[in-house]
Amino acid sequence: MSENARPLDLLNSAKGKVVLVELKNGHAITGKLIAFDVHINITLESAEEKRDGETLRKLGNVFIRGDTIVMISPTI
Amino acid sequence: MSENARPLDLLNSAKGKVVLVELKNGHAITGKLIAFDVHINITLESAEEKRDGETLRKLGNVFIRGDTIVMISPTI
Amino acid sequence: MSENARPLDLLNSAKGKVVLVELKNGHAITGKLIAFDVHINITLESAEEKRDGETLRKLGNVFIRGDTIVMISPTI
Amino acid sequence: MSENARPLDLLNSAKGKVVLVELKNGHAITGKLIAFDVHINITLESAEEKRDGETLRKLGNVFIRGDTIVMISPTI
Amino acid sequence: MSENARPLDLLNSAKGKVVLVELKNGHAITGKLIAFDVHINITLESAEEKRDGETLRKLGNVFIRGDTIVMISPTI
Amino acid sequence: MSENARPLDLLNSAKGKVVLVELKNGHAITGKLIAFDVHINITLESAEEKRDGETLRKLGNVFIRGDTIVMISPTI
Amino acid sequence: MSENARPLDLLNSAKGKVVLVELKNGHAITGKLIAFDVHINITLESAEEKRDGETLRKLGNVFIRGDTIVMISPTI
Repeated sequence: MSENARPLDLLNSAKGKVVLVELKNGHAITGKLIAFDVHINITLESAEEKRDGETLRKLGNVFIRGDTIVMISPTI
Repeated sequence: MSENARPLDLLNSAKGKVVLVELKNGHAITGKLIAFDVHINITLESAEEKRDGETLRKLGNVFIRGDTIVMISPTI
Repeated sequence: MSENARPLDLLNSAKGKVVLVELKNGHAITGKLIAFDVHINITLESAEEKRDGETLRKLGNVFIRGDTIVMISPTI
Repeated sequence: MSENARPLDLLNSAKGKVVLVELKNGHAITGKLIAFDVHINITLESAEEKRDGETLRKLGNVFIRGDTIVMISPTI
Repeated sequence: MSENARPLDLLNSAKGKVVLVELKNGHAITGKLIAFDVHINITLESAEEKRDGETLRKLGNVFIRGDTIVMISPTI
Repeated sequence: MSENARPLDLLNSAKGKVVLVELKNGHAITGKLIAFDVHINITLESAEEKRDGETLRKLGNVFIRGDTIVMISPTI
Repeated sequence: MSENARPLDLLNSAKGKVVLVELKNGHAITGKLIAFDVHINITLESAEEKRDGETLRKLGNVFIRGDTIVMISPTI
């Protein structure tokens, strides 16, 4: 862990990998992280809305507005 | 996937195509994406409010304020 | 559709025409669009609050704060 | 209607007149508009809280923070 | 009423006097207004939380964050 | 009371003393005020969550994000 | 306690240690604090969602958006 670690480092290292995104409205979305910016606006590829591990619906490519996001977690 | 991909790239490539827009109030709107700005304010053409795949009402041209948007997904 | 279309273009072209404004509190207002600014603060003339196509009350001239607005749609 | 009309023009012309102010918490306040700024912070004189046309209570002079305001309408 | 009246003028003239402060969470606080800034952060002295004219509890000196405030009214 | 009193003066004078902090989620926290900044982010030492004068749990050192704070009151 | 103590000092000293993070949606997350920025965006390692001391689920590495955070407390 570097002294100068920044929160966006985790998102940078997650690019191209599948992440779990939790939204303020309680929804959970998974998908491959394609891009993010300083507002934490993100785009995902092959995105799916999930509940309890089940796929509720497939979203394909999706832009998610940063201010609706609670957390982003790279999945293993 | 470019190293320098930005979230707005997805919106740029969706211009002129039909997108699904989900709002913080739970509403879903579809329509042809005409324009967007850095606040994610957008305008749609031939917009329709949807629920469970059904058209609730036709909105025609519509301006949607960015801070009410959860996500924008180009439909196939 | 121009490459450089901006969301505010729709509001500009709607000036002087009747628009439907939907608010975050669920209210719907119609009226002639007189002015708007970058915050999407707007003023309407001959404004009316509507529900299911019925006029609930007449508001006359009204200033609406931009951050309470979900969408603005020019009516036909 | 001028090409360059701005939303704050309506508030300027309402100075010294009685306005109806609707708040995000659902309250309605009437009073003589004394001042406003770019945040739509306003001050009213002889303000009264209203419900269904009835006066709930008299507030006298009052400062209202702009971000709590939905709309401001000059009354006739 | 001056042409150049500003909303903060009312707060300036209320300094050192008892004001009623209504908060977004529905609480009402009275107290002597000691200071305010452009965010409408305020400090009160001898503050009391009120409901229906009754004192719920005494707060003494209190700092109130501006973005929680709906309105501030000098009491007579 | 100085003409130039500022709201942060109260927080400055409360440094090193026990304060009561009320949050937008309705929680009440007490603790020794160690630091604050212009966003009203604060840190407390020996913090405890309180309800009706009872200690719900001990938090020790805690950072509280400013935009979750309603008010801060030095206790006697 | 230094005169010039700043709230972020507590977060700096908590780097590399386990912290408890409470969110506006009521969730509690623990994990090793890896990084934070001025928005209080943070990243945690070995994060777990907790309720009443029980682990609800393991999150691994996680980015948490600052504006969803109520407080951050280093655990002993």
